[in-house]
Amino acid sequence: MKIYDFKGFPNPARVRMAVAEKGLADRVEYVTVNVPEGEHKAAPFTAKNPAAAVPVLELDDGTCIAECTAITEYLDNVVGEPTLTGKSPRERAVIHMMQRRAEATLLDAVATYFHHATPGLGPHIETYQNREWGEKNRERALDGMRYLDRVLGKQSFVAGNVFSMADITAFAGLIFADVAKIAIPAELTKLHSWRANIAARPSVKSI
Amino acid sequence: MKIYDFKGFPNPARVRMAVAEKGLADRVEYVTVNVPEGEHKAAPFTAKNPAAAVPVLELDDGTCIAECTAITEYLDNVVGEPTLTGKSPRERAVIHMMQRRAEATLLDAVATYFHHATPGLGPHIETYQNREWGEKNRERALDGMRYLDRVLGKQSFVAGNVFSMADITAFAGLIFADVAKIAIPAELTKLHSWRANIAARPSVKSI
Repeated sequence: MKIYDFKGFPNPARVRMAVAEKGLADRVEYVTVNVPEGEHKAAPFTAKNPAAAVPVLELDDGTCIAECTAITEYLDNVVGEPTLTGKSPRERAVIHMMQRRAEATLLDAVATYFHHATPGLGPHIETYQNREWGEKNRERALDGMRYLDRVLGKQSFVAGNVFSMADITAFAGLIFADVAKIAIPAELTKLHSWRANIAARPSVKSI
Repeated sequence: MKIYDFKGFPNPARVRMAVAEKGLADRVEYVTVNVPEGEHKAAPFTAKNPAAAVPVLELDDGTCIAECTAITEYLDNVVGEPTLTGKSPRERAVIHMMQRRAEATLLDAVATYFHHATPGLGPHIETYQNREWGEKNRERALDGMRYLDRVLGKQSFVAGNVFSMADITAFAGLIFADVAKIAIPAELTKLHSWRANIAARPSVKSI
């Protein structure tokens, strides 16, 4: 399998964590797509992902899988028991719900702030910006952090008491928040201690 | 199982189609949430879904599942073989990818146009609007339609040659586009014929 990505960026980090958590590192070849130079926005890369985003997983038969949740589904089901996306129908549903919430309320909100209300990746990449919408999403990202803090006051991980894809998404959201300079408010102590807990996982070394 | 929704709206339509496709209609009790009056934005409903959106699936043990993809995962895994979200790791990955693309490029784009650049559900619900962002998303929705038309030139359904959750999302996107008055361009003949094909499925009668 090949993964096209740019090391250190938030969405690539999600898939790199999933690869490491599943013990698949020696089956993956990473290929760098120069996102800061806009390589993801042009052919030939857009043939692999018309959405012009990394990461993309390319299977040995040439099938290209984009979208972090879809890639994680693949990795989680291709070896061993699913450990990131749940086993029972109820577990699967809760993990998918909490993953989507972490994505919509935190990661996507931070990304929108970064790409619309800051210089982002520079004028050659950020060809359309709506500053007001970007600023609105900074508020949404902070709301997302407050929501996750409340959740983590009741359970150890984002989707319950077991580590899952939902934790990976939320962790990537906080990595992106660092880049975008949106600090986690000090009073969100549950979110801070969850983050320290996740940061200690061996899979984080791979990102 | 209970499903809290508002019949006729696009996201409720996704879950109603999934219920019907899985033959689960007689196991579900629908409870109306008066979205036009803002019932989804206040307690007690927000205790079921802090994201303040319908639909929500409530299991018999009280667990509330929000997000259409998560509800569909549950319904698809709780009875019979999965028919909406795929069986093999590769199938699952492709369906999740195409579902997310249909959601991001069409359904979410149409929703953003509707809620930001039209009166939407009225001033008591649309308490923040960014018209420029809304108009930008009208363009994105049309790009999404053009993308799906290209996909459907190569295969019968959105995620391949089998009906899946990705078709449900795209179909709901077109229902929403009707409401928002974004017409499918006439030249997108593959998208038009796919829509007619999906509209003929018995599950569409339930929405």
